[in-house]
Parts: sequence; structure tokens; C-alpha cells
Amino acid sequence: MYSIGVDLGGTNIAIGLVDEKGCILDKRSIPTRKEREADAILQDIAMLCIEIIEKNALKEKQINAIGIGVPGKTLPLEGIILSASNLHLDDINVKNHIQKYINIPVYVENDANCAALAEVLVGAAEGEKDVIVVTLGTGIGGGIIIDGQIYRGAFSGAGEIGHQVIALEGHTCGCGRKGCWEQYASATALIRDAKQAAKANPNTKMIALTKEEKIENITPKQIFEAMQLGDETAAEVLNQYFQYVANGLTNLINILEPSCIILGGGISAQKEVLTEPIKKYVQQQMYGGLPLKTEIKSALLGNDAGIIGAALLETTFL
Amino acid sequence: MYSIGVDLGGTNIAIGLVDEKGCILDKRSIPTRKEREADAILQDIAMLCIEIIEKNALKEKQINAIGIGVPGKTLPLEGIILSASNLHLDDINVKNHIQKYINIPVYVENDANCAALAEVLVGAAEGEKDVIVVTLGTGIGGGIIIDGQIYRGAFSGAGEIGHQVIALEGHTCGCGRKGCWEQYASATALIRDAKQAAKANPNTKMIALTKEEKIENITPKQIFEAMQLGDETAAEVLNQYFQYVANGLTNLINILEPSCIILGGGISAQKEVLTEPIKKYVQQQMYGGLPLKTEIKSALLGNDAGIIGAALLETTFL
Repeated sequence: MYSIGVDLGGTNIAIGLVDEKGCILDKRSIPTRKEREADAILQDIAMLCIEIIEKNALKEKQINAIGIGVPGKTLPLEGIILSASNLHLDDINVKNHIQKYINIPVYVENDANCAALAEVLVGAAEGEKDVIVVTLGTGIGGGIIIDGQIYRGAFSGAGEIGHQVIALEGHTCGCGRKGCWEQYASATALIRDAKQAAKANPNTKMIALTKEEKIENITPKQIFEAMQLGDETAAEVLNQYFQYVANGLTNLINILEPSCIILGGGISAQKEVLTEPIKKYVQQQMYGGLPLKTEIKSALLGNDAGIIGAALLETTFL
Repeated sequence: MYSIGVDLGGTNIAIGLVDEKGCILDKRSIPTRKEREADAILQDIAMLCIEIIEKNALKEKQINAIGIGVPGKTLPLEGIILSASNLHLDDINVKNHIQKYINIPVYVENDANCAALAEVLVGAAEGEKDVIVVTLGTGIGGGIIIDGQIYRGAFSGAGEIGHQVIALEGHTCGCGRKGCWEQYASATALIRDAKQAAKANPNTKMIALTKEEKIENITPKQIFEAMQLGDETAAEVLNQYFQYVANGLTNLINILEPSCIILGGGISAQKEVLTEPIKKYVQQQMYGGLPLKTEIKSALLGNDAGIIGAALLETTFL
């Protein structure tokens, strides 16, 4: 048997045919064109599902479920998006829309929760019960797994771990607060700090590594490259960044004490270069210097985590 | 049927005979004298249990269980204290010790978790499923209830919500970090800030309210009294304090989104005078200004919460 996982993002709709082990057998992607009505977007998703089933010589009854991950709050079993403001998909019954075209069970889940579920079921935290998946991206996203299940909070909105204030009266955040963790430890924050450091240190190797040698074009990957080339400015920026990441992670460990924290997002491709210094700084902040028990690892599934988690969602309702 | 709840603290051992509805029918208290060996302390607890049973003309078989709350990490069902450093009770099988004297099932749980359980079963959050009980005391303690059950984390140490850094490079905390929430929002922090404000404003009414008119003797209750007498210095100190409390609560709401947060500790006797301004400041910090859904209330059970929760512990294992 198979499932279909859909990652409905602000830019693209990615869809995958997934087997029981969480392997993606076939994949499609189209632009979301999010300015469109819900009807049009959801019809596109249904058509993509039909296409991927037919192209793989399958029948509807061989597909267990369609799982859809969205950047917002949902009622998973009911197949409803409560709010996904960035996509103008508030209060939408996705299940009814999709089932106009295709007769398969439909589940809808927050995308960070899908990614977390995938890492726990078939990724870096396989078999772990209490896990936080932290996505270091444009902002900081979080998926919390408790006792092997997605934890959604009382009103479907838990996991906004990027919006914990770590610096009173610090940088203003898009959420309205000041000093949120994502203003210090997201990829966006890292880029901001690298640009600022490069302006103060124009000899940094970071500049030469960027497109057209313009610091405005710097990427997180290039900051790591510069550090590995021995550039001191990049090393300082990253050292500070690792401490910022560690500050928020230690907060989460003190509050929830998961067995495992998975770091995702593009930056997690740096693997141990990212996780080792962060582990060191978290250990330094452990209560009374006690040994850090929570494992800190990079994600294993990369950008596919959303599709895989969405596809495997139905297994959590059996 | 009845249960016995024990609140084993650093100063006193309090014990209560509790009925199925969580009412305390009889209570005893003796000094802990924590410098003693575990043997002696646990024998005292067993003797107190026997005494309270006999004085109430009950028999052992009418007692469902003895639940013991301790300031530390435990294995509840096994009846083991993993660590309770302040009491020198590390790696102690409490159940075996107690059952040398009395043949009743014994459970051992972290004291903040006991208090949280009590508030959820028969207190301010009765019937709620996802709750955080925040104790504003010497430090800040936390008990997390998820899906109606105590959440202990992967290594029995979850709920250290006081040790979330909210102010990078802020006040040094006993845990080794800087800027922990409890350095700003505990009763201890409130007293510190009131003393400091009184030194800068010697006309404050706070001083006259203290024992021997010495600001060193100020209590949280007196700070509230001064505010209610129209004292501006006290009002400013409390206004800042409410914001500090709100900062950490908003972090917890963004991460866990409980349906209800219960504020405990001596300060919670201030009821709405405490909770209303805190709610206002949490609402101001809600993501994008969205309405605050989490209820914020004061605890109902006061100092008895520990005994009641310990006594009702066994109902969670049925």
C-alpha cells in the first residue's frame, strides 16, 4: 500500500508517492500561486494526486490516504485548515474539496508537525518518543512529539518555539514581541549578523565567496565555507550564532526535556560542524553543570520531511 | 476509600489523609531535619502514616496508597527518588523503606508535578487536559500536564520552566545560566526589586508596612498592600514584575499552548490583583495581536496542593 504526501508551501506545492517505509517513489512540484482562491489551489492538488497515481499504474484503492502539510493551524482528522494566513486559506475544508475529485481519506496537518513526525518515524529520531524538531530557516519552526505523537496544544497552535523571548527588549520580531529567539538563531538572523560583521571587517573572506562579491548575497553555506577557510570574522559570527541557538535549545530542554532534538532547515546540511559546537554550549548551560542527556542531531530527511510526514500522517490515526 | 499524601519538603514533612474527592480529612506536620540519613526520614514518614491511620480509626486495607511528593526527580511507580540534592536523598528506594513498616502501595513524584496534578484533578484547572502550573516562590517551579497526565520528560526532569533565559546576559542564576526567568519573576526577585526601589525612593509606603520598618523585612504581600494604598513606587515595581511574569508565560504559551495556566505560590493569594494585569501583558504579546485563548488563573489549593496531588497520584496509574 501507498500514501500521498503533499507539502503545500507559499511558493510551491510538492507532492510525493510514498511507500509504507516512508520512501518517496515519485515526486511532482508546481508553483502555488498563492494569490489564487482556495478552490483553484485545492483542485490543482487533487489533479496532481490523480496524475501521480495514474503515472505509477496504481488505482485509488491502493492509496491509503492523502496527507497535506500546510503552514498554519489545522484540524487533522476533519481535514480542515483553521488558519494559514500567508496562503489566504483560513477556515477551509480541504477534505471536502479534494474528495470532490478523488475518493481517498484526506488529513491536513501543520507542516512543521509533518516534518517532525517524519524524522521520528523514519528519520534522525527514529523510535524516539519525546522529540522536538527545530527548523532553522527564514524563521524558527518547531514540531513537538510527545509519547510518539504530534503535540498540537489546546488550540492547534503549539510549537511556536521561535517566538520565545530570550533577550528582553531585543530585536523587534514580526510577531510583535521584542527579543524572540528567531531574531537571533534563524538563518535570516545569521545572514544579518554576517553582513554587519563584514561591513566592520571588509577583509573577510565571506565577501569573495558571494555571488558578484556582494555581501548582500551571502548565504549561510558561504558563511560556513569562509569559517572553514580560516576566516576569523566568519568564525566569530558563527560562534555567536551557535551560542544563540544553544540558548533557546537549553530553554526547551529545561522546560520539556526531550530525549532528542533534531535540527532541520538548510543549515542542518552542515551536520557536525553545526551540532558539535551547539552541543558544547548547551552542555555549558545545563542545570548545575549536570551532564546533557538530550541528544542533539541534524535532520536526516531534508526538504522531503514535509512530504514524508504528511504521507505517514494517517498511520498515527489507526 | 482513602489515600495518604506526603509533602516531603526541605523544612517540613506534611502528611494528610485524603478522601477520593481530594478533601484533606486530617493533617500532621513534623520538621524534616534534612541533615539526617534517608532511613530516619523515611521511618518518620512511615510512623506518621501509621499514626494518622490509627487516629482516624482506619485499617491499612482502607488506604489505597501513600503518595510522596519530593523536590527532585523520581521514578513514580517504582517508588524511587533519583535525585533530590537539597535533601541528600539521591538514588533512594522510598517504597522499600516505607513498606518495611506498612503494607500499602507507595508512589513517589516530583512535588511540582503533585501540585499540578491536584489543581487539574480537584483545583483551579479541574477537567482541563493541557495545563501548566507555575509556582512563583523562592524560585519558579513548574508542573506540566499533557492530555490529563503529568509530563515528566524523557529523563524525569521536565518542568524546569523557571530556568528559561529571557534576558541574555541578565542576572546570574543559581543554575549557572544568566537571565533565567526566575531571576525576574520569582517572589525572591520581586522582593529584590522592591528593596532596590525603596532605596531610590525612601518615601515609599512600603517601608512603613514592614516589620520594624526595615525594608530588608519586606514581603510580597506588603508590596501589594502598598500598591493598594496608592504607593507609586510599589505600583511601578509590581507593574514591572507583572511584565516579567507575562514574558515567561507568553514563551510557554507559544511553545506549548496549554488551555490553562495556573499561578501558584504565596503570591497567588492576590488572585485577580495578580492575574488581571498579567493577562493584559500576555495579551499584548500574543502572536500578531491574536486573542489570548489560554486561561490564566490563580491556584485554588494553596499549600495543600502538594499533599492532595501526592494522595491522588495512584489514580493516575489505575
